[in-house]
Amino acid sequence: MPVITIERKVLAKNDEVATENRTLFARHGLFVFNVVSSPGAGKTSLLERTLELLKGALRVGVVEGDVQTDFDAQRVARYGVPVVQIVTNGGCHLEAKLVQDAVASLPLEGLDVLIIENVGNLVCPANYDLGEALKVVVVSTAEGDDKPLKYPGMFRNASVLVINKVDLLPYLPCDVEALQRNALQINPALRVFRTSCTSGDGIAAWCDWLRSRAADRP
Amino acid sequence: MPVITIERKVLAKNDEVATENRTLFARHGLFVFNVVSSPGAGKTSLLERTLELLKGALRVGVVEGDVQTDFDAQRVARYGVPVVQIVTNGGCHLEAKLVQDAVASLPLEGLDVLIIENVGNLVCPANYDLGEALKVVVVSTAEGDDKPLKYPGMFRNASVLVINKVDLLPYLPCDVEALQRNALQINPALRVFRTSCTSGDGIAAWCDWLRSRAADRP
Repeated sequence: MPVITIERKVLAKNDEVATENRTLFARHGLFVFNVVSSPGAGKTSLLERTLELLKGALRVGVVEGDVQTDFDAQRVARYGVPVVQIVTNGGCHLEAKLVQDAVASLPLEGLDVLIIENVGNLVCPANYDLGEALKVVVVSTAEGDDKPLKYPGMFRNASVLVINKVDLLPYLPCDVEALQRNALQINPALRVFRTSCTSGDGIAAWCDWLRSRAADRP
Repeated sequence: MPVITIERKVLAKNDEVATENRTLFARHGLFVFNVVSSPGAGKTSLLERTLELLKGALRVGVVEGDVQTDFDAQRVARYGVPVVQIVTNGGCHLEAKLVQDAVASLPLEGLDVLIIENVGNLVCPANYDLGEALKVVVVSTAEGDDKPLKYPGMFRNASVLVINKVDLLPYLPCDVEALQRNALQINPALRVFRTSCTSGDGIAAWCDWLRSRAADRP
């Protein structure tokens, strides 16, 4: 089974670099989180709302991961924060080495928080530690309420769940209570927020938590 | 670069088995398509609407691919069609061998059409030929209009694009014309349908096309 052996080696090597990243982030006293979701769940919109609300309160840097284009980095740059775009060129997830190379061009010493926005993929990024403190999984109500059960790996490895696009609930067959229940069945320790980046609902609660987490860092 | 070498071998081996599948499908005169999308774009709902409308007109079999659970097979089975569920147990895409093993338990000789519903992932399934005649990529309007540019591989390798959940357009910042334009920029040969599995809009046009494609098969 050569493929599995190689895959293990890749993950072991990735974990080594993730540990280096974690040491680097600790040296700069950074709170770092890795935002993961399906394509189009609203990761970048959540970032925009967050940057808007935290302006002046926290110094935030961003690493954007995308299969192609630097659209997300352009969107984030409008908020006047340092941002670097990783284009994976077909790669389905970020790896620790890509992040290590990317953060070399960010002014880490001047930051409180580093947000890594992963490639839109609810499967592959689950297994790749980037050196973050925790993973935030974003799920859109438009995706339906069964996704935590169907893609459990990501929900198991995340610490925070953001249920986004709650403004669409009146128009969808999604049962948001069932969605949350399904996620907690996979991972009872998940901290859950419900947000709408259109109406702004829930953004303040999410940002309050983020601020308190950033304040707790060593 | 051992990983890349192994990856090439995996794809080459997959292509060999896909060719065997294609031969098998041709022997039974089956029209086979592979439905791909992000999680929650509405692949299974599209299948349900399709099975409902094609009942009595075409004999359809289904292969369901999921990371976990047999929810989708259960949903499809209600329509009285033969269905087999592949659970990848964390795997991010279907491979030709999994499909080969799965179809061994389907009554292929009695079918006109075989629909393979892939794992919800807009990246990885793009490169895995399963022996299908063509790929149908489903994108939900809730995912936004930039996805074809950000995940071009899947749109490049598909022959048909279904823009689903058009009933949500009044409530979304998605510009459906831009979405279609972006997709056609990546792949000008895409046949495009716009559907809503909630309102039923566009389902008849999609099924008409499917029927005519099935009639054209050798």
